[in-house]
Amino acid sequence: MHIGILTGGGDCPGLNAVIRAVTLALINEAGATVTGIERGFLGLCRPAMRPLRAPDVEGILSLGGTILGTHNRCDPFHYFGADGADVSAQAVATLQREGIDGLVVIGGDGTMVIAEGFARLGVPVVGVPKTIDNDLMHTDRSFGFDSAVAVVAESLDRLATTAKSHGRVMIAETMGRYAGWIGLEGGMAGGADVILLPELPFSVEAVAEVCREREAREGDTLICIAEGAHALNQDQVVRARLADSPEPVRLGGVGQWLAQALQPLVGSEVRSTQLGHVQRGGSPTPFDRVLATRFGYHAAQLVRSGDFNRMVVLQGDTCTSVALASVAGQSRKVPLDHPLLAAAQGLGLSLGQPRV
Amino acid sequence: MHIGILTGGGDCPGLNAVIRAVTLALINEAGATVTGIERGFLGLCRPAMRPLRAPDVEGILSLGGTILGTHNRCDPFHYFGADGADVSAQAVATLQREGIDGLVVIGGDGTMVIAEGFARLGVPVVGVPKTIDNDLMHTDRSFGFDSAVAVVAESLDRLATTAKSHGRVMIAETMGRYAGWIGLEGGMAGGADVILLPELPFSVEAVAEVCREREAREGDTLICIAEGAHALNQDQVVRARLADSPEPVRLGGVGQWLAQALQPLVGSEVRSTQLGHVQRGGSPTPFDRVLATRFGYHAAQLVRSGDFNRMVVLQGDTCTSVALASVAGQSRKVPLDHPLLAAAQGLGLSLGQPRV
Amino acid sequence: MHIGILTGGGDCPGLNAVIRAVTLALINEAGATVTGIERGFLGLCRPAMRPLRAPDVEGILSLGGTILGTHNRCDPFHYFGADGADVSAQAVATLQREGIDGLVVIGGDGTMVIAEGFARLGVPVVGVPKTIDNDLMHTDRSFGFDSAVAVVAESLDRLATTAKSHGRVMIAETMGRYAGWIGLEGGMAGGADVILLPELPFSVEAVAEVCREREAREGDTLICIAEGAHALNQDQVVRARLADSPEPVRLGGVGQWLAQALQPLVGSEVRSTQLGHVQRGGSPTPFDRVLATRFGYHAAQLVRSGDFNRMVVLQGDTCTSVALASVAGQSRKVPLDHPLLAAAQGLGLSLGQPRV
Amino acid sequence: MHIGILTGGGDCPGLNAVIRAVTLALINEAGATVTGIERGFLGLCRPAMRPLRAPDVEGILSLGGTILGTHNRCDPFHYFGADGADVSAQAVATLQREGIDGLVVIGGDGTMVIAEGFARLGVPVVGVPKTIDNDLMHTDRSFGFDSAVAVVAESLDRLATTAKSHGRVMIAETMGRYAGWIGLEGGMAGGADVILLPELPFSVEAVAEVCREREAREGDTLICIAEGAHALNQDQVVRARLADSPEPVRLGGVGQWLAQALQPLVGSEVRSTQLGHVQRGGSPTPFDRVLATRFGYHAAQLVRSGDFNRMVVLQGDTCTSVALASVAGQSRKVPLDHPLLAAAQGLGLSLGQPRV
Repeated sequence: MHIGILTGGGDCPGLNAVIRAVTLALINEAGATVTGIERGFLGLCRPAMRPLRAPDVEGILSLGGTILGTHNRCDPFHYFGADGADVSAQAVATLQREGIDGLVVIGGDGTMVIAEGFARLGVPVVGVPKTIDNDLMHTDRSFGFDSAVAVVAESLDRLATTAKSHGRVMIAETMGRYAGWIGLEGGMAGGADVILLPELPFSVEAVAEVCREREAREGDTLICIAEGAHALNQDQVVRARLADSPEPVRLGGVGQWLAQALQPLVGSEVRSTQLGHVQRGGSPTPFDRVLATRFGYHAAQLVRSGDFNRMVVLQGDTCTSVALASVAGQSRKVPLDHPLLAAAQGLGLSLGQPRV
Repeated sequence: MHIGILTGGGDCPGLNAVIRAVTLALINEAGATVTGIERGFLGLCRPAMRPLRAPDVEGILSLGGTILGTHNRCDPFHYFGADGADVSAQAVATLQREGIDGLVVIGGDGTMVIAEGFARLGVPVVGVPKTIDNDLMHTDRSFGFDSAVAVVAESLDRLATTAKSHGRVMIAETMGRYAGWIGLEGGMAGGADVILLPELPFSVEAVAEVCREREAREGDTLICIAEGAHALNQDQVVRARLADSPEPVRLGGVGQWLAQALQPLVGSEVRSTQLGHVQRGGSPTPFDRVLATRFGYHAAQLVRSGDFNRMVVLQGDTCTSVALASVAGQSRKVPLDHPLLAAAQGLGLSLGQPRV
Repeated sequence: MHIGILTGGGDCPGLNAVIRAVTLALINEAGATVTGIERGFLGLCRPAMRPLRAPDVEGILSLGGTILGTHNRCDPFHYFGADGADVSAQAVATLQREGIDGLVVIGGDGTMVIAEGFARLGVPVVGVPKTIDNDLMHTDRSFGFDSAVAVVAESLDRLATTAKSHGRVMIAETMGRYAGWIGLEGGMAGGADVILLPELPFSVEAVAEVCREREAREGDTLICIAEGAHALNQDQVVRARLADSPEPVRLGGVGQWLAQALQPLVGSEVRSTQLGHVQRGGSPTPFDRVLATRFGYHAAQLVRSGDFNRMVVLQGDTCTSVALASVAGQSRKVPLDHPLLAAAQGLGLSLGQPRV
Repeated sequence: MHIGILTGGGDCPGLNAVIRAVTLALINEAGATVTGIERGFLGLCRPAMRPLRAPDVEGILSLGGTILGTHNRCDPFHYFGADGADVSAQAVATLQREGIDGLVVIGGDGTMVIAEGFARLGVPVVGVPKTIDNDLMHTDRSFGFDSAVAVVAESLDRLATTAKSHGRVMIAETMGRYAGWIGLEGGMAGGADVILLPELPFSVEAVAEVCREREAREGDTLICIAEGAHALNQDQVVRARLADSPEPVRLGGVGQWLAQALQPLVGSEVRSTQLGHVQRGGSPTPFDRVLATRFGYHAAQLVRSGDFNRMVVLQGDTCTSVALASVAGQSRKVPLDHPLLAAAQGLGLSLGQPRV
C-alpha cells in the first residue's frame, strides 16, 4: 500500500501531529509506503513530493505549522493548464505514475470540496478536518482550536493588567470571520466582560453602557470581539456619531472600529489590539496534540480498512467518520441556544445586546 | 436564598473558576446570598466563613488553587468533638445558625462521600467533581486534568532536548496512583516513546528492549511513567538483579526505581525526574477555565431549580448531573480497550508489554 | 518615617515587584510607615491613598501592571485648579497633611520631570526608572523590557511556523516609537531575518531584495519592525508605486504600511501583525522580577540614608543612582555602533540598508 | 579557513544559538568552512563530524540542547587507546587530516581544561563558556542560567498556589551543587520566603521558626533550596530527632531531607519537590538566545582576528575575552556580600540563619 498525505488551506497547530500519526500508524500497522505531497494540491499539479519514513516524523509532534507546506489557493479543478483544461486529470495521472493508492487530505471546508472532487474521479481519499475556527460541520472539536483559544486567553490575561492599571477599556479582536467559537471560548477563558460574536449583532450603545457601569465601580472593561462581529443596523446613536463614515471602515479591524465608536460614549480611554496571525502559529497545546494524534490514527484505520471517501470527526469523546460528501460547503456557527452563551449571560457578561 | 460554597481535598487548577461561576450566577440570576466556607469541611466544624460578592471573585478565574482554602483530611463524620460524638450535627447546626439553605461542594471522591452524608442529614447539596487525575466516575473530563497534562507535556518537551543531546534514557514520573490518565495523555502529548500505567503492569525487560533498539538507531528514549505503575511479578531478569531489594523500594518514586532497574540493561545513561507537586499548582489552562466555568454555572442551575443531592458531570460535550449517591467510592481507570491505548501502540509506542 | 509610593505613566511588568520591595524593605529595615498613592500624581491632586503593609504586597511580585493604578497624563504642574493656579502646591499640601516625609516615584522620563519638580519644591524624592522601551538615560536596563522582548520573541516563534508553512513574508510590528531596543533584541531572539529600527531608516527595495533571495531558496522571510521605523526618503521605487498615498498612511501601523509596500515587489504573500498592547501587560519575566526587586530595594536604601533627589540605575551589573535632574528630557537610542547591530549584520540579517 | 565546533559537558539552553551564531558569522564574514564535531570530544576520538552550512543552522536558535550532541565524560587526555597512550594525539591527527585549522569549544569548566590541553598541543582554540549554574569565573552571566531561573520561578509560582490553598510548607529543590545562583535568583523571582544556598549553611531550627511564624499569620511557607545546601553541623535539635540517620541521607535530595527534618518542628504539612532535569532542557529564554548569539558572534570575531586560546566572557554589558589558561579549575560562588543576599534579607526573607 502506498499512501500520499497532503495539508491544504491555512496552517494550524496540530497539522504535524496528524502527519506523524498517519505516517507512523500506516508504517507500523500496515507496512505501507507513505509519501508527503508538498504545498497542498500544488504538489500534485506541479509534482513535488518526498518519502515519509519514521525518522522523518520524529520530533514533529510539537512543531507548529506543517512540514509539508500548504497553499491557500491551489484548486486543481479551477487551475487551468496550457491546454485550457483544468489540471485535475494531470493530478490524478501524477498519483498513478507515483503508484499512490490513496490520499489522506488534511484541510478545511474548501480542501474537503477538492478532496471530494478527487474521490469522484476514483481516487480513494480520507479527509481529516482542519479548522482553527472550530466551524466544520459534524465534528464537535478540531485540533488547532484549543491552541488559538489559549493564545486569546493569554493575551486577555496580559491586556487585563493594563486595563486595571489604567482603568481603561481594552478591546481584543480575535479570529472568527463567520463563526464566533474562538471569541466565545477565548473570551470566557480570558475573563472578558463583554464578548461580541458574528452570530449576534451587537449594540455599541449597550457595550458603552457596560463600560460606564464598570467605570462607576472599578474602572476597567475587557472586551473580546471576533473579527466578523458587527453592530446592529439600527444602532442610531453610533451611526449619528460616525456620520461621515457611513460604511463601517475596518482598515484596522472591527476592534479598532469599535474603539473609535466607543470612545465618545465612555469616560475612560479605549484601546484596541488585533491579535492577528499569532493565533494560528506556534506549538499546539497538549490537548491539540492528543486530538490531532487521534484524528491521524483514525484516518490510518480508515485507510487500512478501505473505508475511503470519509472524513474523520469527533463526536462527544469518540472518533468516528462521516461521508466526505456531507461536509462540503457548510459551516457550523455558534447556535444561539449554546450552553456557553447562557453561562456567559448567567455570569453577568454582556454579549452586546440591548437591555429590554 | 443563601448558599455556602466549599472546596475539599487536594487543590486543583480551576477551583477558583468554579467558585467564581457559582457565585456570579447565583447572585445575578437568583439574587442569592453566597458564603464561602474556609478550608473545606473544617470551616463548618470550627466555623470560618466569609461573604462572597461579585468583587470578591473578580480576577480569580486565572488563579490556581482555591481562595477558600482546602483541607485534605477533615471529615465531620469521622472527626470527634469533646463529647465523643462526631461533629456532623455541629456542622449542620452551624449551617442553620448562619441561615445557609444549601451547599455547593467542590471536591473528589472522598469529599462526595461526605457531601452525601450531609445530604442524608437533610442538607441540600450540589456536588462539583474535582479530580486532577480525571478518575471520577460518570464524568468524561474534569477540570484540572488538562492543566496537569500540560505540565507533563511541557516537561517532556524539556527532557527530550536533554535526552537527544546526550543520547540518554530520560524518565518522567507523573501523578496517577490508581489511574493512568495523566501519564497516558501527558505521555502522548509529550512524545514519549514508552508509557507505563497503573492499569497495565510492565516488563522492565520489555522497556529495556525498546531502549536498546532506539540506542542502535538514534540513541535516546523518553519514558513517561505514572506514579502507580508497577512491574510484572514474573519479571525475573529484574528481580534477579535487584535481589537485595526484594520489595520495590520507592523512596525516590517508581521512576527512580525504574532508572535503577534499567541502567544495567541498557548502554546509555538513564536519568529520572519526578514531576511532583508542580503538576497540580498554577493557573488553569484555558480549556480548564472554560470547563470549570461550565461546571460552576451548571451547579448554580441545579441550585436554582432545587435539584439537590446531585453532582455535575460532563458527558460527551454536555453538562448534566447524576445522583450524588451513585458517585461515592468508585474510580474510573483507563480501560484496556481505550482508543488512546490502541493509538499509542499503533504509532509504535511501547506500553511496556513483553512481545509475544 | 512615612514614605509615599506612586507609579506614573504607562504600565509595565515589574511595577508591583518594585512596590513590594520598597514597602517590605522600608518596613523591615526602617520601621517606616508606607502609603500607596493611587493613579500616579492624580492621587495627590484628588487625594486617594491607602496604607501598604506587608500583607498588602504579599503575592504581588508576579502580577503585571500596578496595584496602585497609574495615569498617563496627570501632571500637577500643568493641571490647573479652580483658582487658575497649577495644583502642585495642593499636592505638596496633601503630602504635609498626611505626614508623608518623602516619595518614591516609579515612572518614565515624563514622570521623572514631575518628580524633579516636587524635589525643587522641597519634597524629598527617590526615582525608580520605568521604561518598557529601555530608553531611559543612565540605566543599562530597566525592568519590563525583558518581558516585552519575551512577548516579541514568542510571537515571532509563532509567526515563523506560519511563514514556513506558506512560504510567506511575515511582518511583526513591535513597540518602540523612538528607540529600537525592543525590536532589536526581540528580533534577534525571535530569529527575524530582517530587523527595522527607528534609528536606521530602511529601504523598502533592500528589504524586498532579501525577501526575493529567500524566496529563491527557502521561501519565507520573517521581518521585525519597530513602530517608529521609517523608510528612506530617497526610496524612489516605493514612492512611485505608492504615488497615490504620498504621506505614508499608518492607520494600521508601519507594519501594515510595509506589507502594502512590499507586496508588489515580491512573489510570495506578505502578512503583517501589530503586536500591540500585549507587549506591556502580564506577569513579568523572572529576570524582570529580580531586577525590579533590586531597584526597589536600592530605592529603599536611598530613602534610609537620606540620599534623595536621585534616581536608581543599573550600570553593568551594579545598582547605583544618578541625580534626578540629569535624567529628565533625554532618551537613549540604539547607537549605530552597538555590538548587537554588528552581530545582526555579521550573522547575515538585514537591517534594511541598501547594499553598496 | 576551516573551523570545527563542538559542545562538551552537560546540555544547556542556548548551545544551539551559539552554534548558529558562530557558523553564520564565520560563513558570512570570513567565507569559512565550518564543521560540527559530534558528541563533544568523542567526535574527535572516534571521528564523527558533519558540515555546517547556513541551512543546517536555520531554525535552531530556539531549540534546547545541542544539535551536535554532547558527552559528559570523554576527555581525550584521560581516554586511552589500544596502545596505552591517551588519544589526544589521535584527536589532533584527526583535525589535521580533516584540514581543520581551529576549534570553537563550547563548554564548562571541565571542557575548558581539555580545550586548554589542545591549545598546548598547538591547536588554535576559542572557548565559549557554558554553565547553567552561572558559576564560571570571569563571566558575569552565561547563557542557560536565565532559562533555568525561569523554570524555577515558574515552578515556585505553581507550588505557591498549592501552599496557599492548603496552608502548607512547600519546598522546591533547585540545581546548584556548589554555587547557589539558581536557587538565589530563582527563589527571589518566585517569591520564596526562605532561600537556602550551598554558600550559607542553614539551621533547620531557624527555618522551622520562619514556618511557625508564618503559620501563625497566613499559614504557608515557600522554601527554595539549592541541591548543595546543607545544615549547620551544630544543629543539635535536628541531629537529635534524626538520630537514627546520623549522616544526612539524601536519596530523595536535600529538599526531601529538609522536609523530613522540618515536619516534626512545624504544625502544617511539609511537601518537597525536586525540580530535576527540567531545569536544563527546553527552549532558551529570549534573554539567553540573545546572550548566546552575542557569545557566538564574539567567538567568531576572535577566530577571524586570530585571537586564539581565549574564552569569551561577559563583563558588565560587554562581551570580551580572557586567556583560556585563567579559567580552568575555578568556580564562582555567591559571595556573602552579594547585593541580592542583602536585598533578600532586607525584604524579610530568611536565608536559614539563626537569629542572634
